[in-house]
Amino acid sequence: MRIGIDVGGTGIQVGLVNNDLQIISEASIPTRTDMDFEEQVRQIAACVLSVISSAGIDPDAVESVGVGIPGIASDSGEIIKCTNMGWHHVLFREVFNRYYNKPVFVDNDANVAALAESVAGVSAGTSSSVFITIGTGIGSGIIIDGKIWKGCHGIGGELGHVIFDLDGVPCSCGNHGCLERYCSATAIIRMGREAVKIHPDSLLLRLADNNPSNINAKIVFDAARQEDPVAVEVYHRFIGYLAQAVASVVNLIDPEVIVIGGGVSKAGTFLLKPLIREFPRYVLFDDQPLPEIKLAVLGSEAGIIGAAMLS
Amino acid sequence: MRIGIDVGGTGIQVGLVNNDLQIISEASIPTRTDMDFEEQVRQIAACVLSVISSAGIDPDAVESVGVGIPGIASDSGEIIKCTNMGWHHVLFREVFNRYYNKPVFVDNDANVAALAESVAGVSAGTSSSVFITIGTGIGSGIIIDGKIWKGCHGIGGELGHVIFDLDGVPCSCGNHGCLERYCSATAIIRMGREAVKIHPDSLLLRLADNNPSNINAKIVFDAARQEDPVAVEVYHRFIGYLAQAVASVVNLIDPEVIVIGGGVSKAGTFLLKPLIREFPRYVLFDDQPLPEIKLAVLGSEAGIIGAAMLS
Repeated sequence: MRIGIDVGGTGIQVGLVNNDLQIISEASIPTRTDMDFEEQVRQIAACVLSVISSAGIDPDAVESVGVGIPGIASDSGEIIKCTNMGWHHVLFREVFNRYYNKPVFVDNDANVAALAESVAGVSAGTSSSVFITIGTGIGSGIIIDGKIWKGCHGIGGELGHVIFDLDGVPCSCGNHGCLERYCSATAIIRMGREAVKIHPDSLLLRLADNNPSNINAKIVFDAARQEDPVAVEVYHRFIGYLAQAVASVVNLIDPEVIVIGGGVSKAGTFLLKPLIREFPRYVLFDDQPLPEIKLAVLGSEAGIIGAAMLS
Repeated sequence: MRIGIDVGGTGIQVGLVNNDLQIISEASIPTRTDMDFEEQVRQIAACVLSVISSAGIDPDAVESVGVGIPGIASDSGEIIKCTNMGWHHVLFREVFNRYYNKPVFVDNDANVAALAESVAGVSAGTSSSVFITIGTGIGSGIIIDGKIWKGCHGIGGELGHVIFDLDGVPCSCGNHGCLERYCSATAIIRMGREAVKIHPDSLLLRLADNNPSNINAKIVFDAARQEDPVAVEVYHRFIGYLAQAVASVVNLIDPEVIVIGGGVSKAGTFLLKPLIREFPRYVLFDDQPLPEIKLAVLGSEAGIIGAAMLS
């Protein structure tokens, strides 16, 4: 029995996970960036204790507490940097242990989701995998020999900020041409908006109520499914970029499985099928057995289950 | 006591390596791509036995035989693909064992060099490192938890073929914009030749005897040291590209050390100092402790020592 905590921008999900990796009790509290760190941790700990209590479990029977954060953390349970929460070099384990004295582990949320899929999800049973979550940005987590590889200094696993297009599109990180500028929902939206400027008569723009700022990834995919040529062109460009990103992961890391998650993965086989067809042409040894590409299956549960599995 | 074999395009080096990781006896034979595989292996085995004999060692006292090849191999000692040698799906271990029956391990030469540096070279004592060899192309090897990570299907560790510039310079692999098109000696030469077309009055062209096809990486670096503005511009561009490549490795893998080897690394601190200064600006978490960047120290011995360490 373990506790998993998923710290997100709007809410903090807490779950009690049994040894079959099922969530048997859960609750959430709102994320309060206006609140100081120690008070927020006190509320998280109260939520943890209430989740345990409502499951009718003895708090002593819980083995450990794991936390996934949109940031980086050290092995000692210090949160080094979690910009969205305003947390920098804060001692999560130490403060949390004032309220509930258990081993506490903290890691990046994409690493946590990668671990969840590799123990209880689509990559269960594999020893190596790379999880790529495609949303506003690109998150990623690397599993090698069944363990999260977050790098020697805890700053690895950031596929979204690998250089993908020299001197390319400016990125929020300050660089140019980062991979996430081409392979995220944000990229689909940018390409869609650019396309309707040139083609104001497209179905894509009509589906967006003739307002380019309404265009999102789902609308682009919907218009492409309806064979709108403007949306189909954006869709093909995006698949081409993602295929090159996936092939780059194969050429460098070559995991057993590459798992695609995040909001954009909801496009399902409409995303997966062309991706599986296209990525091998960018792989150096494309005549060899290649990693399988699969869609994530755990969805929002990944954050709690993966966090609970941290050790 | 182990045997290490370094298979190269012009010669095959064989060395006997003692438990202090020193080469105590060595010899070489020419690479004969005109010869069939079985005959070439027979000659390699004969060279191995003569190296052992000339060291006055009992052949039974040798623990294992390791081979580094410019290609990929399976854990079972099969060479899957070694294009330069014309070897495809050949059973190296099986044929070699006809002449000398010892455990045989085969791996990619960049992986072997990475292992050599991590046990007996500049990254000795570290548990994770990435070795980048900069020559005609870019080779690389990843060490995680003290072991070569060559991927689940043996096709990883190919940093040179990660997409670095979408739709960029055509690569010999058939793709466009591969990293090695920007970070290799070949890239320096290309940029140098392009630059002297525009600046035929440059020192760079004079050092090449006024013939652009004489330009090589060393001449570009020599002209840059002498502050030829044309060569300095090429040199800065190259350092900028390499800094982005190194930062991409940090963002994704974050090893303890990144080791730079290969012909271009002979530029020494003239390459290393600006690289160390520039790469952090492309690292996402650049305010954290970062990997050390170091020059390889083993040189041509890496191939034999690393191969001997395979297991």
